[in-house]
Amino acid sequence: MEDLEGGVDFLADERKKAQFDLESMKILWAGGQHRFQVADRMARLVASDPAFKKDDRVRLERKELFKNTLRKACHAWKRITELRLTEEEASQLRFFVDEPAFTDLHWGMFIPAIKGQGTEEQQHKWLPLAYRMQIIGCYAQTELGHGSNVQGLETTATFDSETDEFVINSPTLTSSKWWPGGLGKVSTHGIVYARLIIDGKEHGVHGFIVQLRSLDDHLPLPGITVGDIGMKFGNGAYNTMDNGVMRFDHVRIPRDQMLMRVLQVTREGKVLQSDIPRQLIYGTMVYVRQTIVYDASRALSKAVCIATRYSAVRRQFGPKNGPETQVIDYKTQQSRLFPLIASAYAFRVVGDWLKWLYTDVTERLQANDFSTLPEAHACTAGLKSLTTSVTADAIEECRKLCGGHGYLCSSGLPELFAVYVPACTYEGDNVVLLLQVARFLMKTVSQLGSGKQPVGTIAYMGRAENLLQTRCSVQKAEDWLNPAIVLEAFEARSVRMSVACAKSLSQFSNPEEGFLELSADLAGAAVAHIQLIVVSKFIERLQQDISGDGVKEQLETLCSVYALSILGKHLGDFLSTSCITPKQASLANDLLRSLFSKMRPNAIALVDAFNYTDHFLGSVLGRYDGNVYPKLYEEAWKDPLNDSVIPDGFHDYIRPMLKRQVRTSRL
Amino acid sequence: MEDLEGGVDFLADERKKAQFDLESMKILWAGGQHRFQVADRMARLVASDPAFKKDDRVRLERKELFKNTLRKACHAWKRITELRLTEEEASQLRFFVDEPAFTDLHWGMFIPAIKGQGTEEQQHKWLPLAYRMQIIGCYAQTELGHGSNVQGLETTATFDSETDEFVINSPTLTSSKWWPGGLGKVSTHGIVYARLIIDGKEHGVHGFIVQLRSLDDHLPLPGITVGDIGMKFGNGAYNTMDNGVMRFDHVRIPRDQMLMRVLQVTREGKVLQSDIPRQLIYGTMVYVRQTIVYDASRALSKAVCIATRYSAVRRQFGPKNGPETQVIDYKTQQSRLFPLIASAYAFRVVGDWLKWLYTDVTERLQANDFSTLPEAHACTAGLKSLTTSVTADAIEECRKLCGGHGYLCSSGLPELFAVYVPACTYEGDNVVLLLQVARFLMKTVSQLGSGKQPVGTIAYMGRAENLLQTRCSVQKAEDWLNPAIVLEAFEARSVRMSVACAKSLSQFSNPEEGFLELSADLAGAAVAHIQLIVVSKFIERLQQDISGDGVKEQLETLCSVYALSILGKHLGDFLSTSCITPKQASLANDLLRSLFSKMRPNAIALVDAFNYTDHFLGSVLGRYDGNVYPKLYEEAWKDPLNDSVIPDGFHDYIRPMLKRQVRTSRL
Repeated sequence: MEDLEGGVDFLADERKKAQFDLESMKILWAGGQHRFQVADRMARLVASDPAFKKDDRVRLERKELFKNTLRKACHAWKRITELRLTEEEASQLRFFVDEPAFTDLHWGMFIPAIKGQGTEEQQHKWLPLAYRMQIIGCYAQTELGHGSNVQGLETTATFDSETDEFVINSPTLTSSKWWPGGLGKVSTHGIVYARLIIDGKEHGVHGFIVQLRSLDDHLPLPGITVGDIGMKFGNGAYNTMDNGVMRFDHVRIPRDQMLMRVLQVTREGKVLQSDIPRQLIYGTMVYVRQTIVYDASRALSKAVCIATRYSAVRRQFGPKNGPETQVIDYKTQQSRLFPLIASAYAFRVVGDWLKWLYTDVTERLQANDFSTLPEAHACTAGLKSLTTSVTADAIEECRKLCGGHGYLCSSGLPELFAVYVPACTYEGDNVVLLLQVARFLMKTVSQLGSGKQPVGTIAYMGRAENLLQTRCSVQKAEDWLNPAIVLEAFEARSVRMSVACAKSLSQFSNPEEGFLELSADLAGAAVAHIQLIVVSKFIERLQQDISGDGVKEQLETLCSVYALSILGKHLGDFLSTSCITPKQASLANDLLRSLFSKMRPNAIALVDAFNYTDHFLGSVLGRYDGNVYPKLYEEAWKDPLNDSVIPDGFHDYIRPMLKRQVRTSRL
Repeated sequence: MEDLEGGVDFLADERKKAQFDLESMKILWAGGQHRFQVADRMARLVASDPAFKKDDRVRLERKELFKNTLRKACHAWKRITELRLTEEEASQLRFFVDEPAFTDLHWGMFIPAIKGQGTEEQQHKWLPLAYRMQIIGCYAQTELGHGSNVQGLETTATFDSETDEFVINSPTLTSSKWWPGGLGKVSTHGIVYARLIIDGKEHGVHGFIVQLRSLDDHLPLPGITVGDIGMKFGNGAYNTMDNGVMRFDHVRIPRDQMLMRVLQVTREGKVLQSDIPRQLIYGTMVYVRQTIVYDASRALSKAVCIATRYSAVRRQFGPKNGPETQVIDYKTQQSRLFPLIASAYAFRVVGDWLKWLYTDVTERLQANDFSTLPEAHACTAGLKSLTTSVTADAIEECRKLCGGHGYLCSSGLPELFAVYVPACTYEGDNVVLLLQVARFLMKTVSQLGSGKQPVGTIAYMGRAENLLQTRCSVQKAEDWLNPAIVLEAFEARSVRMSVACAKSLSQFSNPEEGFLELSADLAGAAVAHIQLIVVSKFIERLQQDISGDGVKEQLETLCSVYALSILGKHLGDFLSTSCITPKQASLANDLLRSLFSKMRPNAIALVDAFNYTDHFLGSVLGRYDGNVYPKLYEEAWKDPLNDSVIPDGFHDYIRPMLKRQVRTSRL
């Protein structure tokens, strides 16, 4: 690691304890040799370039912070073009720069939207400009009053057949565009979502390419009011991003700037549905959500890497004579930390699987096969919800696991939390998504007798009759190591919760009312289904090729820890549906404890396998070499408050208070 | 409310729905007429004084932020002396200023330490100086390498009999004092905890009054290196506080600056135990923890007030025609939010009860009755742990309940979270405290046969034999409204979990080893015991005087919601110990849902009862008048990034990128 500086490795003894081949695990984590090499090279490139230094980020005030981000984004672009990086390399480089910026939206939303929703002509015109960054784009969907409910957006795009233009307008305050990243200060263009109106008739919400700022002087074009929406959670974090507010006062754009791949508006103002299936958008959605799940495993692995290393460095209490006990040796610490290490691996495995699913969905769409779409949609919606919620909570748990020092920005954890939590809200609020999954589950249950076989991740519902009857066969703790037993318990729990919800729903004369009334239970059933997907994908992965000494054994342990810790956390589900008995629950708990002991010697190597540089981790507590205390001490003195011994304001405010009577300098 | 500005009350319709007398509830929440009036007066005093404006706090860089806090602390002190406020009023005023400052430690730790641990002579010398703020004190206990384990502190205080002085020294880097608030830049004095060494012999850790800075020029005294430890979690938040680092290089203080109420060191270096019982310190601990529990109810109530009001303002999805549905009407929102409203009330009730407990403990100590101390100690440790953990999580949940806009600093929730979370770590790490409770539980269980009757909050263990056998009698949902049934279920769960742990422990030949191995389960048993305490104190409160139309009914509903939501969340406990059946669990869930409907019309009034000013809430989303959107819009433009249309850095970094080829200003 580049930051090791040839110093002592305080975690060397921990590293020697590992019972598996670290290099093989690194490659497995990265998703193969090629991806490992790209990520490794890009991570080192960023870490070794002083221009990408980020440890001062939390101390900068907004304007300085933002300017600094512009500088880094510009430098990254320079390096990408100079080194003629591939798209994959460029994306990895931007990832390791690790600073939210307008470029995220330009590459991640603006370009994909044109690719997915633009006609060939539109793509031909706009994409080259965007690829060369001669225009910078954002994605202007959400409004002050409208987030989840896209169909409720108020911005209007009214066709003017006289001039062959659309008139984009913000009729109310709540229709102000609000949140789009890169909008506030940087973007020259945006994909603006608005209600299409032709001759007074509404035709739903569509995307329009709107130029926002002059390419000459960067000033907002006439009729556009645009600015930044202000400070967001945390130091540094998303304050590097110019999330924006925008209002339109009858702004005119040419007709050909409506994205017309799916729906066309002719010169005469006629609306034509193209023969491209609307379902195409689901392909993009699967892609975006796959990225989010993958990012969840990255954020979570970053947090657990910090917490695990520091838990091995930190000592507290213990024997009267000799050094105190490493906090990683406490069962309370293990029972909170180790399931999170396991979750990081589980989410990585499921993220890899989603890559396959995306390919599969794309191929089917091209063959006009839409049969698996509802299942793929529900599955990705659910996995987005589950992995981001768990990761957000887990980062904060890792911070708490670092005790008081986790509260310092130099631990890296406060910023990681603040920068991560919006993932629970964007691209579908997590609760809204759970209810979408629940709708799909209820539909599946209702069709069970119809002969229509559930496919993919919901296929197990086809065995509902059996799963409603089955009894868990665990008799001793080790039985819980059997993947088939674990899987069946999770399948039974999910089926029984869904069927119970369906039964309760059937009591309502108005099913929509019933759905609203029971939505908390329905969300619970959705969680059960999604957790099963993760467990089953992890188990499937274990049955595939795994190379490297001891690697498979580690993954087996991680899989068991993941499944059994969920079983413990959601014990009420498993018991109330009689999927397992209290005795079996107690055996699972015993086994889990012994698995923690099995994980203990491998803990440091399991987080080393993420192959994160100290630059990327950005944490004094998570340093590779474990040399925590001197660096914490050193870091403290960098605070601006330490620029002077006597703080600003002392003479005005403190001295007069102290000086009211006492005259001696020493009491 | 002072911020209403005579505008429209957008929540007026909601307020009309309330089914209870709001004024009576306000007084109940405040803890009586007198306390209500003091709090109300002080809150308005602060809110109406422009010097206490705080909405710019999140935008200030560290030095400006800190200077601003000094200004406010100085202004608060000026107002306190000008208006000749009572101690109670002064403390309320400081609370409503709502900005962590060195004064918190001066009044909350430095002065109480001298009062509790200083001799009469020492109190006579130091307290008047401190009361007049002619000296400013901090509390320097924790070190870089030592937090929870106070006995592991490394700083030394070696007696020099020749000069009659103690030599305070930091022998290692990890012995650097680290975290003390007010130490970094402001304090002139500190209570420094160090190992007492006389003639090479150690006599444990004790407190010493050490002057840190000259009262003349405020420079650190010779031998003292002191500074700020740097940025902490969040915008504003605890960055207003100068948490400090300090090292001593053989700093000499007079012998009479050791706090000698309990242990004395004579001129000759003899150590004398005074006749004052050591247990006295427990009195202080009960006091401090009572404050923390009370503060938990304040922080939690603040968060739920914001989330509840915004949930009534925000609309999303719903009927095709007409306005969208208020998000507070969704059961998913209710099932997350309403139990938190109930928890705020529950913690307030238990906080009030702890005030009584403190008086009781104090009286007993004065009468040399130490019999209830272990129980009081376990009970307060547990309540500190439970209420702070729940509150920290709940604030973040409230933020998520506000959707995307909760991520904006102007929602007030990010700062509330960042400023609150350290409560989970300071004054006893929450997990460490749970294990202390667990030890007490195991001891109680082991003594059950001995004839020694458990007292106070653990008295129910005396009925263990019965509680191990009892069966829950619930047959229909409404049976769960019966407090006796709820109480018994919680008692049975707690007893059974403790007894199960004790049984598992007895399998170990080395009990200490067993305790470590089973610590996660033991922590679970502790939580069950503490939740029972809260439920039982809430039920007890319902049996006391409650005045005002409909107030009692509201509290009954809140109590049921609190208890049943815990039952749902910890269902695994209740089922695995066979305290209730799956059928009874399902009935509890049904009842809970109907109680949410009962709470719905009262929700706004229930949070109005906290009587918080808009200044104190510091949230655009939580505004009393519900006029959210125009104010969010207005707030956005205040960001420094909006000072100029073209952002700093544009010409250096963005323009060159854009300008590489395109020449027209409009595409």
